[in-house]
Amino acid sequence: MLIVKKFGGSSVADKDRIFNVARRCIEEYNKGNDVVVVLSAMGKTTDGLLKQAAEINPNAPKRELDMLLVTGEQMSVAYMAMAMASLGVPAVSLNAFQVAMHTSSAYTNARLKRIDTERIRHELDNRKIVIVTGFQGINKYDDYTTLGRGGSDTTAVALAAALHADACEIFTDVEGVYTADPRIVPNAKKMSEVTYDEMLEFATWGAKVLHNRSVEMAKRYNVQLVVRSSLNYAEGTVVKEDTKMERMIVSGVAADKNTSRVSVIGVKDEPGTAFKLFNYLAKKNINIDMILQSVGRDGTKDISFTVASTNLHDTLDTVKEYTDNYGGHVEYEDDVAKVSIIGAGMATNAGVAAKMFEALYNARVNIKMISTSEIRVTVLIDENDVTRAMRAVHDAFDLGDD
Amino acid sequence: MLIVKKFGGSSVADKDRIFNVARRCIEEYNKGNDVVVVLSAMGKTTDGLLKQAAEINPNAPKRELDMLLVTGEQMSVAYMAMAMASLGVPAVSLNAFQVAMHTSSAYTNARLKRIDTERIRHELDNRKIVIVTGFQGINKYDDYTTLGRGGSDTTAVALAAALHADACEIFTDVEGVYTADPRIVPNAKKMSEVTYDEMLEFATWGAKVLHNRSVEMAKRYNVQLVVRSSLNYAEGTVVKEDTKMERMIVSGVAADKNTSRVSVIGVKDEPGTAFKLFNYLAKKNINIDMILQSVGRDGTKDISFTVASTNLHDTLDTVKEYTDNYGGHVEYEDDVAKVSIIGAGMATNAGVAAKMFEALYNARVNIKMISTSEIRVTVLIDENDVTRAMRAVHDAFDLGDD
Repeated sequence: MLIVKKFGGSSVADKDRIFNVARRCIEEYNKGNDVVVVLSAMGKTTDGLLKQAAEINPNAPKRELDMLLVTGEQMSVAYMAMAMASLGVPAVSLNAFQVAMHTSSAYTNARLKRIDTERIRHELDNRKIVIVTGFQGINKYDDYTTLGRGGSDTTAVALAAALHADACEIFTDVEGVYTADPRIVPNAKKMSEVTYDEMLEFATWGAKVLHNRSVEMAKRYNVQLVVRSSLNYAEGTVVKEDTKMERMIVSGVAADKNTSRVSVIGVKDEPGTAFKLFNYLAKKNINIDMILQSVGRDGTKDISFTVASTNLHDTLDTVKEYTDNYGGHVEYEDDVAKVSIIGAGMATNAGVAAKMFEALYNARVNIKMISTSEIRVTVLIDENDVTRAMRAVHDAFDLGDD
Repeated sequence: MLIVKKFGGSSVADKDRIFNVARRCIEEYNKGNDVVVVLSAMGKTTDGLLKQAAEINPNAPKRELDMLLVTGEQMSVAYMAMAMASLGVPAVSLNAFQVAMHTSSAYTNARLKRIDTERIRHELDNRKIVIVTGFQGINKYDDYTTLGRGGSDTTAVALAAALHADACEIFTDVEGVYTADPRIVPNAKKMSEVTYDEMLEFATWGAKVLHNRSVEMAKRYNVQLVVRSSLNYAEGTVVKEDTKMERMIVSGVAADKNTSRVSVIGVKDEPGTAFKLFNYLAKKNINIDMILQSVGRDGTKDISFTVASTNLHDTLDTVKEYTDNYGGHVEYEDDVAKVSIIGAGMATNAGVAAKMFEALYNARVNIKMISTSEIRVTVLIDENDVTRAMRAVHDAFDLGDD
């Protein structure tokens, strides 16, 4: 068996944790398996590098930021190889050049295009544990790139696909994917499996376990993932293609507080208004969702949408450019949050949204906006209502442990 | 003009110093010159990485040590490129892969074999300042190597040679090469020029300004070096081929306290004794110098030599293996030092050694061992006598400022 194991920054944050990971990988190796380990930078290393860079140049060239950031993972993999060597197991660390991991040219947000497997295969054939830097690649100029948020997960999935791995395990500090965040909903239950599509909704809507780029890639290449804890041996959550088995209508509840509502009030009620507004935002790479357009009145209408709170400032600047040209004015709310129910069985079941709204009504949670997909219903509510809303919905769909 | 400028770790130890170096390079660039900058790791970065590595594995594989250490220079060059960008000058950082810098396979102590210049030329043609990681290379396996002590100087000289640079400036925290260490001999004088051979002796015997590997390479490829301060614009010391001009018999005085004397007493007085002993040491990569062999007596003889104090422990272990097999016993002294006079004019002048010994006699410094080369006379003395000895010899040859 060839197994890819990915460990995040907190799993390799210090010497003890590095040895914990090393031992865990060696157990797999000692069963006769080929083991490829993907690591992130240790603990807060990346944040530290970014902070120093910002002190030197707040608008540092992205190419140089990537040149800097990739050192973080390179340190992790070197230390890990040293730890394994001290435990008597031959290991070799490889960075994006050595693998090589080919990406698009976009610095700080590159896409993996192709992974050479020759060097890794060669090292595996020599019965070495291969430790690969996550998050990084090289582009056609032979310059380093980084993959953006969740990049190490993506590296692991891409490696599993390229190597036709038998398993791809994503280790994290939780035991798997839960029906809701256990810190908010105490009786939340670990799911034994979820579909890629459900996981995508969980990732997008704030479950924070796996980044959606890695899930999309896993789905595309049909890489079965296991999300599990680096701290214990509990069975994790398997992320896989939908199977025919009977499944819950609703799998879980997710919340995302990093959201703001922006409304453009009193824009002209004529064709192209929304297109022009969203074109302005797209040019600035601002992702929007939960778009709501009011019915026109007095020749004007209102357009509302949500953006990540981290983008609110840029969004307001951009919208102002729009209103300066096309009229209207802007209002916004930052203390809002999205709560979603997610479930692959939802598509074929009527009344799911109504049941969610009823639960929220009973919990006296006011709904500001609604958006739905085939396998998801999302409501925008007051940030202060999130805990009450999640517990109410979680209970309504009977998701928790008893 | 194409100019290679090398700055050591202390010159880039913090944000202010990074900007100081950036400005200095930009001045050169703004004159219309092509500028290639070679950097070491910032301040104590390398020591910090080595310390962490030792905590994880005191016998870490050298390949992984190099994989770890090269991140230090990579951080330096990225930060420098960011600093230059913030000053409005286009710059690009390159590591050993990107250049590429091909070396021998010996991890932690590799030799540069070949430098590709295509990428650097391309970036220079685009009017960029090119910032290159010192100290590192890649070997035929596509693995990182490091060049050992003084590696960044060697990188700079090799780059200057490969690029046929018009100048190679080694910036340091002193203003050049002095007739003696100014901390020991207060009236020591900066030399305006020294020959490669003199510089080699200064480097070998403790002047600590330039590592001898870089000087050897400069001599081989006839790269004229300038050693100068990164903190001011004082003229430095030019290191170049010997010219016909009249020169001082003695250029300067150097001392090296990192030295120990080891004596093997009572070994058999027969052919091959010394060969076998030094063979044992060579196998352990222990460099020895100042060998002294006593005249045989009672069928035995004594062999004394000096080693770097940092190698004393290994040396004593190794010599014990020898004496266990071939007889004799070991004595050693650690509180000794070497003091040398160096001068290209010495070879053609008689009486130089005698004048040195006279000065030492007058200063009541006891000489324990003597060794000479064409352009050097070295004595081994008590470590406590170093200051007195250096001042006496410096005065005797009239090397100081008045």
